[in-house]
Order: sequence, then structure tokens, then C-alpha cells
Amino acid sequence: MNPAYQRLKARFARIATLGEAQAMLGWDASAMMPPGGGAARGEQLATLAGLAHELLTAPEVADDLAAAEASGDWDSANLELMRRGHARATALPTSLVEASARANSACEKVWRGAKAASDFAAVRPFLAEVVRLQRETAQALSAASGLSPYDALMEGYQRGVTAAEVEPVFTAYEAFLREALPQVEERQARGPAAVPLAGPFPVPAQRALCRGLSQRVGLDYDHARLDESLHPFCGGTPTDIRITTFYSEAEVSKALMGVLHETGHAVYERNLPGPWARQPVGEAAGMAAHESQSLIVEMQACRGDAFLRFLGPQLLASFGGEAGQYAPDNLGRLWRHVSRGFIRVDADEITYPAHVILRFRLEQVLIGGQLDVADLPGAWNDGFHQLLGVRPPDDARGCLQDIHWHDGAFGYFPSYTLGAMAAAQLMRAARAEVPGLDDALGQGELAPLMGWLRDKVHSQGNRLGFQALLRHATGKPLDPSDFTAHLRARYLA
Amino acid sequence: MNPAYQRLKARFARIATLGEAQAMLGWDASAMMPPGGGAARGEQLATLAGLAHELLTAPEVADDLAAAEASGDWDSANLELMRRGHARATALPTSLVEASARANSACEKVWRGAKAASDFAAVRPFLAEVVRLQRETAQALSAASGLSPYDALMEGYQRGVTAAEVEPVFTAYEAFLREALPQVEERQARGPAAVPLAGPFPVPAQRALCRGLSQRVGLDYDHARLDESLHPFCGGTPTDIRITTFYSEAEVSKALMGVLHETGHAVYERNLPGPWARQPVGEAAGMAAHESQSLIVEMQACRGDAFLRFLGPQLLASFGGEAGQYAPDNLGRLWRHVSRGFIRVDADEITYPAHVILRFRLEQVLIGGQLDVADLPGAWNDGFHQLLGVRPPDDARGCLQDIHWHDGAFGYFPSYTLGAMAAAQLMRAARAEVPGLDDALGQGELAPLMGWLRDKVHSQGNRLGFQALLRHATGKPLDPSDFTAHLRARYLA
Repeated sequence: MNPAYQRLKARFARIATLGEAQAMLGWDASAMMPPGGGAARGEQLATLAGLAHELLTAPEVADDLAAAEASGDWDSANLELMRRGHARATALPTSLVEASARANSACEKVWRGAKAASDFAAVRPFLAEVVRLQRETAQALSAASGLSPYDALMEGYQRGVTAAEVEPVFTAYEAFLREALPQVEERQARGPAAVPLAGPFPVPAQRALCRGLSQRVGLDYDHARLDESLHPFCGGTPTDIRITTFYSEAEVSKALMGVLHETGHAVYERNLPGPWARQPVGEAAGMAAHESQSLIVEMQACRGDAFLRFLGPQLLASFGGEAGQYAPDNLGRLWRHVSRGFIRVDADEITYPAHVILRFRLEQVLIGGQLDVADLPGAWNDGFHQLLGVRPPDDARGCLQDIHWHDGAFGYFPSYTLGAMAAAQLMRAARAEVPGLDDALGQGELAPLMGWLRDKVHSQGNRLGFQALLRHATGKPLDPSDFTAHLRARYLA
Repeated sequence: MNPAYQRLKARFARIATLGEAQAMLGWDASAMMPPGGGAARGEQLATLAGLAHELLTAPEVADDLAAAEASGDWDSANLELMRRGHARATALPTSLVEASARANSACEKVWRGAKAASDFAAVRPFLAEVVRLQRETAQALSAASGLSPYDALMEGYQRGVTAAEVEPVFTAYEAFLREALPQVEERQARGPAAVPLAGPFPVPAQRALCRGLSQRVGLDYDHARLDESLHPFCGGTPTDIRITTFYSEAEVSKALMGVLHETGHAVYERNLPGPWARQPVGEAAGMAAHESQSLIVEMQACRGDAFLRFLGPQLLASFGGEAGQYAPDNLGRLWRHVSRGFIRVDADEITYPAHVILRFRLEQVLIGGQLDVADLPGAWNDGFHQLLGVRPPDDARGCLQDIHWHDGAFGYFPSYTLGAMAAAQLMRAARAEVPGLDDALGQGELAPLMGWLRDKVHSQGNRLGFQALLRHATGKPLDPSDFTAHLRARYLA
């Protein structure tokens, strides 16, 4: 570890500490801040982001990166991640970064109203400007990295996965869907109808149940909080994690499954390797890796038969009412119901990838310039029909539903489905290696699963890319057949 | 406004924005943070403080300050405050600042245990190191400013007031106390005994009442929050103010009067001149000025006869119980009870200045080197006995009670009593200028008082020093006879 590398470590720790401050202020903005604080908060976050950018792009960083030497797996990976971070930050002229921030912010504001009114024309010119600047950004990142423009955007969310790797995986899933979805629907129609849970579900009881379940997953409230926000998320820092949810007295599953989902993210952050805290190699391994950890908890473990056997009596104890509605079979029928809905965030785990595949294909042609923003609604509706056989009745249920593009996030969507597939692959490997894993889930014990994940995934930080991490944990790179096997077992066995 | 001054304004805005982020993270640490977040929060705050210090002491600042030109009252005052801030920041070597931060932090930690155990010997070596470094700090600030060492420390909390101005004010108060305190006690003993309020006082009802009262004072919850913390405070920023309190089901007056006190601080921050936000001249005018605003709300307005007539029925409506206990006379006897207690924060408004006078004298000789830390407990107890005629039974009720010195804050204490005196002076002027002010208080209406304060004090920002601000608002500099006249009227009339 030579002096140049030591200086870099100190500098990156400072940058990461600024990032922690931003994370806390971001959490506060969503969970605590009164409305009148918004303008000042925007300035605070912009100032911190500006200072972090200055620290990352200062002239001496390039000199230190050129002179730095590091040995050993972790330090070598750390230095490589420093080089990538610096290359990305210096690839973009400040004028482009600022123009993008302004365009994203303007578009996102207009989008909120446009979505509510299902009025694509209102947001179209703003989205066109966002796309124009994202194309420029992609070109600049491509020139600096040697990746294709779209891959260079994807790299910002999940390093080490290219569109060329993702496309055949998604094409195969499309074929699976064409075959399996009608079978699942037929089987579902044949079976007994789900009995809706009868509320109300008082918020204090929901809160206590959610807290208790998150503790079962492994969340330690000496290092975490559970609060409320309109859009649930996991924020904060590894030693001070903030998860949020949104309670409705009429409905319990959204808060419950939402908290389990966010807890999967939270425990990943909490278990990141402490000695590498505030270094690039000590961070999580990307958005697809992160989503695999929320989905293995929510979808693989907690919506599975074994855990539902445990959860039923918990629900009865928390909310009372008719015991039969909490029978595991009924919970399964309710919480694993498959339907060709238009809204991604409400989708079941079988149709969800179709929503992602549509977006993945559209954003490639938007960034590549083959699709004009004006033609997006039509392309969306055609694509949706092709994938799921139904046509969105309006743009609110079509291309206006997600914030991502309207806030300048292109290349993010594939992470959701890569994460779902990785979760199935990890669960299969955990089942093979951890004896009694499902018995434990039936007792509400997630410790065996979470211990395995800590060892195989969490403790690896960002040392490995997505594919190498899966190889380390499961002995093979991404294998989508584990996901389809999981779906067949759960929905068609 | 020449380019150098424009650059300085942009730089100081950036520094102030970092200060806002620190304020929010500090609030979170006291009101929200799980215990395990403490270590990382310390790093975050230290990093922000370090960056702000780098921005303030960068070499180009001195050049810009030398070249800057500003005209008009506000810009001239602003530039002068920039010069002072820069001079203070550059007067102290980084090694001294860091050594102080470490010594303060170490001492404060040990102090918590030492106070609980009333064990001065345990904290003595740590406090001695704090004092040693504060002496060095005072010397360095003195050399840079031309003020005496102790005055240079005071200047950090309330600019423009010297020990030489404060000493005769305090000496006169000592004489008043010697004469008036026995009279008040005699009169109190002769009168009817106060009937304690019978609880319990459910926390939700206390919270609703406190919120409603703070809104009457003028707090706008579109720009504020009321939360809970062990030690109540007012934090946040002018557009996003965070006040806290501490509820006990057994006792209602502490939370109630505490919230009114913090609301006085909060409304001051909220009413600071918006066009000068994030500039030195747009800040509050110092700690004594700030305390005058909390005390004019709590002590002058809300503990006065008129407001207690309004408050009694509010308490009855909130908590029920025997109506007689909420009679204004009884509330006055309860909440204006005078006694020679040992604890400053529990003191009534007559004896409170004695607590401050003792600390003011002791900290001058500690900083001057005439008093050794080892001799502090004896000097404290002797001084307390001389002022109030009783002797603290132990150091927990003596020199260990306050955090201030154990955290390196010397020169702060006078602000409390200067603020109390200024509050009386401002109230007298407001009464003379605002017709029907007490009638309004009797209706629970604070708007006439708060409007006058906004005009005369809040909107002035930090344009004027403490004395000039009082002259602007009341036509004269600090006149302690307004305070003693207030005390005579309230306790001896």
C-alpha cells in the first residue's frame, strides 16, 4: 500500500462520508421533512453532491491513481473501483451534468401531473430533453469506458453486465412466459378462489408486526429505524439503516411484504464488510445484487409455503377475525395471484419480467436514437400487447407509470429481473447447502438463510462483479433456469 | 458590489448550506438516530465541519476579503461579519482545533458518568485539559482580535458584549437579589400554598396542546416539526425548524413551558430576513439575542397573569380533573415559585441570574489562570453560598451539573441572563408601543407581540450587535432596571 493509494483511501472515505450525509438528508426529506423545507433541502443535497464531485475530480486524484499500487484481492479491487469511479466522474463535462440535473428535475415535476392526468403530451417535450441529454451522457461515458453507450449507462447501476448478456436471457424468458402463463392462469382458475382478508388492520398492530418480522429477518434496531413514507425505500448507512413503508388500515399485505422486501436490502447493507466501510470495495455489489437480496427475503422466503405456515397465526394474533382466512393456502392464493396487470409495481413474479423486458428494449432504442420520444406511447402499448396479450387503456397505465425515465434513469430496469433471477439461483444453492432451511422458515426462523447470505454475498462487498459474485456463491454465473424452475415449482407443480 | 464581494457571498452561502446539513444531522442524532449510528454520525459531522473550515480558510478568501467592497447597511455589515468569521477561523491552528475537539469529546463522555456518581475527581484531569486548551484558544483569538482572552471567547457566542460591560450589571443584580429575594420568600410563605396539578397527563394530549400553543405563538408547521428528545432544543434551519421536548405523564409544565421556550427560538429563526438567508448578516444576532426571544415568549408572555387566564381552561379541556387547580392564581403560584435551588435549569427567574453570575466569575478566573481546576468545587460551593446563602451538598448539584465547560464552552453562560434582561426590556417597549398587548395575551393571542418582535428584532438578522439591536428596538442599550422592575411587579407588587 503505497502513499498514493493511502491518500486515495482517505479521499474516498471522505467522499463516502459525504454520501452518508446525503443519504440521511434524503431519508429525512421523504420520511420527516415538513413541505416548506424542500427548497433548502435541494440546495443542501446539491452542495454536498458538488463537494463530493470536486473531491473525486480534483487534479491530484489522477496523479495518485497513476502512482497508486495495491496488492491482494480486496485492495486491488478497491483501486480498480476507484479508477472506474474517477473515469466516470471525469468523463462528463460539468455543463452536461448540470444540464441533466436541471432537465431531470423539470421533467420529474411535470411528470407527476402528467401521470395523474394520463397526459403524455404534457411531459413529452421535457422527456425529449431528458433523453437528448442521456444520449449525450451515454456517448461520453462510452468514449471513456469502451462500453457501448447503453452498456455505459447500465454500468452506473450494475457493473459488469451488458445488454448482449441480458438479451438472450430475456428472450428465453419470453418463450417461457408464452408457454407457462396460460397454464398458470388455467390452473389458478380451476382452483378455489382466494378469500380476501377482512380488515380493518389497525396501524399500530401492523407496525408492531412489521417490526417483529423484520427482526426475524435479522434487522437490529440498535442500527435501524422503521418509519413511514409515501414511497417505501431503504436508505441510511450500514450502521444506521432507515427503512420505510406505507400503512393502509384496509390492506395489510403491502406494508407487510414491503417491509420484508426493504429488510432484505437493509440486512445486506448492515452486513457489508466493516473493515472496508467507506471504500468502493466495501459497498454493495450493484442494483441487481441488491434487488436479489430484497427478493430472496420477500419472494423466495416469505411468500413461500413454509413461511406462510408461520405467518398465518401471527396475522391472527395481530388482527383477530376469522381464522380460516389466514390459512397458508389462502395466503398463498392471495399473495401469489398471477394476472396480466398493466402496472409493474403491482405485478406478480411471473409477469413482472415482462414489464422489465418491455422497458429494457424501449430504453435501448430511445438511447440509440431509433425511437423518438413522440412515438413512445405507441411503441409501449404495442410491446406490452406482444408480451402479455393485453393493451394498456391509457398512458397512465402505460409509459407514464414509472418515475425512472422521467428522472433520467436509463439502464436501471434490467436490475429488477436480474435480481429476481439471482434470488432464485441463490435460494436453490442455499437449500442445497443449508440443511433444514425450509423447516426453519416454517418456524419463522430466517437466521439459517441470512447467515448463508451474509457469508456468500453480503460479506463480499463490491469485490466481485454481479456474475463473479453469483459464481462465488452458487458455483455458476447467472442461470435463469433456476428462476423458471422456481416458478414451475411454485405455480405449476 | 464588486466581484470579490460577490465571490465571497457565494462562498459564504455554500458554507452556510453545509451548516444547514450539519444542523439537520445534529437534530437527527438527538431526536431520531438509533444508538448504533453514533460513531458514523460523528464522522459525518466532523467531515462537514472540516469542509466548511477549508472553505472559510482557503487562501483566496483573504485575497477576496482584502479586495471586497460593499455599500449600504446590510452589505457593509455582511462584509464585516465575513471578516470577523475569517479572522476567528484563521486565528486558530488546526492542531489546536483538533486537540480541543478531542479533549472536549473525551471530557464530555467522562463527565456523564462523573455527574451521575457526583465524582469530580473522575473528570478533573479531563476538565483540566479542556481548560488548558481553552486558555490557548482564548489567547490565540485575543491576539487576532485585540479583545481580552475571555472576551474573545464570549465573542464566539454573542458579539459586541464584553466582560467589563457585564460585570457591573451582574454586581447590581447581586445587590437587588440580596434585598428582594428575602422579601419574595416572605411574601410567598405568607400567601396560599400552590395546589399541585393532579395528573396523569397523557402524552398524546400534551403533544396536541403543545402543538396548538406553539401555533398560537406563530410556529407554522409547514416549516417546522415538534419531536421528542432527552434534552429539548431548537434546531434545523429557518425554513425547516425542528423543536423538541420531553414528555412526562406525571408532570405537564416542563413540556408545556419548554415548547413555548423553544418556539420563541424557532419563530426568531423563521422570521430572519429571507433575502439575506445563508449570509452572515442574515443569521440571528447571537446567543443572548436568541435567549431574549425564547424568554420573552416563555417567561414574559406565557408565565404572565394574562396568558395564564387563557391557559387554565385549555389545560382543563386537555386533561380534565378538578377545575380549581387550573385557576390562573394557582398556575402562577406553581409556575413562578421562587426557591434557592442548586440546579440552574430548574431555577426560577429571580434566582437564575445568581447561577449565571457564579459561572461567569468562575470561568473568567479559570480562563485567566487564577483558579486551578482542582480548586473548582470549593470555589463553586463558596460562591454559591455567598450568592444564595446555601451550600450545594455535593458536586452533582454543584460544579458537575452543566455540560458547558465539560464540552469546552466558556463564555456562553452570560448569554442566559443578558437574554432574560433583554426580554424584560423588549416586553416593556412592546407594551408601550402595541396597544392591547396584554388583552390579546389574555385571549391567547400572541400575534401582536410576535409581530412587533419580527419587526424590531427578527427581521434585523445579525445587522446590529446586541446593544445596537436593543437600541434599535427599545431606544436604549441594555437597561437591567427593566428586568428588576419586571421582577418587582410580578413578585412584590
